Amino acid sequence: MAFNTPLTRKLGIRVPVVQGGLQWVAYAELAAAVSNAGGLGIINALTQPDPEHLRQEIRKTRSLTPNPFGVNITLLPALNPPDYPAFTQAIIDEGVKIVETAGNSPGPVIKKLKEAGIIVIHKATTIRHAKAAIRLGVDILSIDGFECAGHVGESDIASLILNSRARQELGDTPFIASGGFADGYGLMAALSLGAAGINMGTRFMCTVEAPIHLNVKQAIVKSDEHQTTLILRRWKNTSRMYSNQMTAKTIEIESTSKTGEFAEVAPVVSGARGREVLTGGDIQHGVWYAGQVMGLIHDIPTCAELITRIEREAEEVLSNLSRSIPSRQQPSRSKL
Amino acid sequence: MAFNTPLTRKLGIRVPVVQGGLQWVAYAELAAAVSNAGGLGIINALTQPDPEHLRQEIRKTRSLTPNPFGVNITLLPALNPPDYPAFTQAIIDEGVKIVETAGNSPGPVIKKLKEAGIIVIHKATTIRHAKAAIRLGVDILSIDGFECAGHVGESDIASLILNSRARQELGDTPFIASGGFADGYGLMAALSLGAAGINMGTRFMCTVEAPIHLNVKQAIVKSDEHQTTLILRRWKNTSRMYSNQMTAKTIEIESTSKTGEFAEVAPVVSGARGREVLTGGDIQHGVWYAGQVMGLIHDIPTCAELITRIEREAEEVLSNLSRSIPSRQQPSRSKL
Repeated sequence: MAFNTPLTRKLGIRVPVVQGGLQWVAYAELAAAVSNAGGLGIINALTQPDPEHLRQEIRKTRSLTPNPFGVNITLLPALNPPDYPAFTQAIIDEGVKIVETAGNSPGPVIKKLKEAGIIVIHKATTIRHAKAAIRLGVDILSIDGFECAGHVGESDIASLILNSRARQELGDTPFIASGGFADGYGLMAALSLGAAGINMGTRFMCTVEAPIHLNVKQAIVKSDEHQTTLILRRWKNTSRMYSNQMTAKTIEIESTSKTGEFAEVAPVVSGARGREVLTGGDIQHGVWYAGQVMGLIHDIPTCAELITRIEREAEEVLSNLSRSIPSRQQPSRSKL
Repeated sequence: MAFNTPLTRKLGIRVPVVQGGLQWVAYAELAAAVSNAGGLGIINALTQPDPEHLRQEIRKTRSLTPNPFGVNITLLPALNPPDYPAFTQAIIDEGVKIVETAGNSPGPVIKKLKEAGIIVIHKATTIRHAKAAIRLGVDILSIDGFECAGHVGESDIASLILNSRARQELGDTPFIASGGFADGYGLMAALSLGAAGINMGTRFMCTVEAPIHLNVKQAIVKSDEHQTTLILRRWKNTSRMYSNQMTAKTIEIESTSKTGEFAEVAPVVSGARGREVLTGGDIQHGVWYAGQVMGLIHDIPTCAELITRIEREAEEVLSNLSRSIPSRQQPSRSKL
């Protein structure tokens, strides 16, 4: 079975499913497994310590899959920002064909990527930002709803609304529905709304090939849709995380701090601690990204098993929908 | 064109679209217009001052449409609760076939309705509440996501997730997707997730037949998806409202009140003021329900125009989806 959407055509992939460019998760192993299964695998640029390591990771991915894959580069405010131009140059030099950008002020990076002829997918949590990205020349939008893991934005607009808005507002630019997707039912819902495919983050964290500790995957399986917490709203950097001791501590500081200084909360939400959760498996040790979609995730399949299942579910949905709207087609057939 | 879903079969309607049982909006005129158009119109029981007026409204609705319609009865905590048993008895006496229940502790009302052989649809914002309602004997669930107008619950789970959870958890009980729906694209997304139809509230407020002031309808048309505010979270009665001066005032009291007494906020959020908005048309005068779906609403059609459009959009989606998954069907046809 093959899909035929603006996303599969534009990216040269078989199934319109894009793996989230997950920090500390999106390494070559996972990206190659997704691409080999027919989706679009993505490696995370800034998970690599420097541009040279990113070059190696790109080469490693290419050695593991003959299929298209992408690189994610996320621009976030930081005291000591990474050397974005050097990372971008590494991506260009290594002949990467598809890049996912996200975060603030991506203009200079997008410009450089477009000059190199790279297909750019940009993540946005509002229609206003999506339109601004189109003006910057991006090829595809990834529309990220309130239910997503990680940076949800400050508008709290659910995927159902945001993707319908994208269909109404973004003209010919294809868009990927992101936030809340885990299966073929969600894929068909997204395609119904006008999306060209879906992005899945939390679901791909919970696959055999995701290079993270088994405890984390098992925590996702055990959790339901209620097991996430929004933190850092006070600092306009609202992020959806797995609910644990550290998110509780963050919320406590957030609601009681008199100074409102980020420094008070910084040690609790540190990226280093979050990374240690993924490598060490102590799910209480730091804050880590997870979406409401945890409620829909009940197993740890291989990426190939997952994508095959999604294809089967999509066919099941199409067949159900055809049965739900029978009248127009039946008369025309009976006339044949 | 006719749909064929568990909802259309069970309720005897043509299009699986249910009108929200909107307080101060869901009168006979609107309900009859929706039912005449092929959906399920609903009148709101407690919008009537007493059971006798409800009897009159039921008879009026029946005089305006030969098609099935329902009555909504919402049970909310109140200092002086309405005479629920008497309202319920009026519904039974008048031969109503379909009732939508919502709110807290609906057990006694549901029991009485079921004993009278009435089809009961119950609204729930969590899977746990949905399952409890099934144990009480309800026939159909209406699953209300975070993006909805009015009472969103305290869990903030988006429709996309909640309806997929319903598919996974509710067994053979059909469910209606509610919160975030306005068109045929959303209907097909809901059917993809496993729902048997959709409920639309804000969208039906913005129709010709909705018996409310034109200013309110025009405010919905002008607003985008950002124009709602969640209020009353502090009192665990979180409600999504049109953002105006009164929601701003509510939020201010909510975040600064030292006592946390509901009495401080009560005059601002009074139902009487909200009702005056709908009748008088001063959209700043009180708080009034509206969903994120306002962003998708750009006109004020008749209910018949709206339903016809939804049918056309649903066909368009089905045709798009069939083209997006071409491979399985094409080979089998070429073998014919």
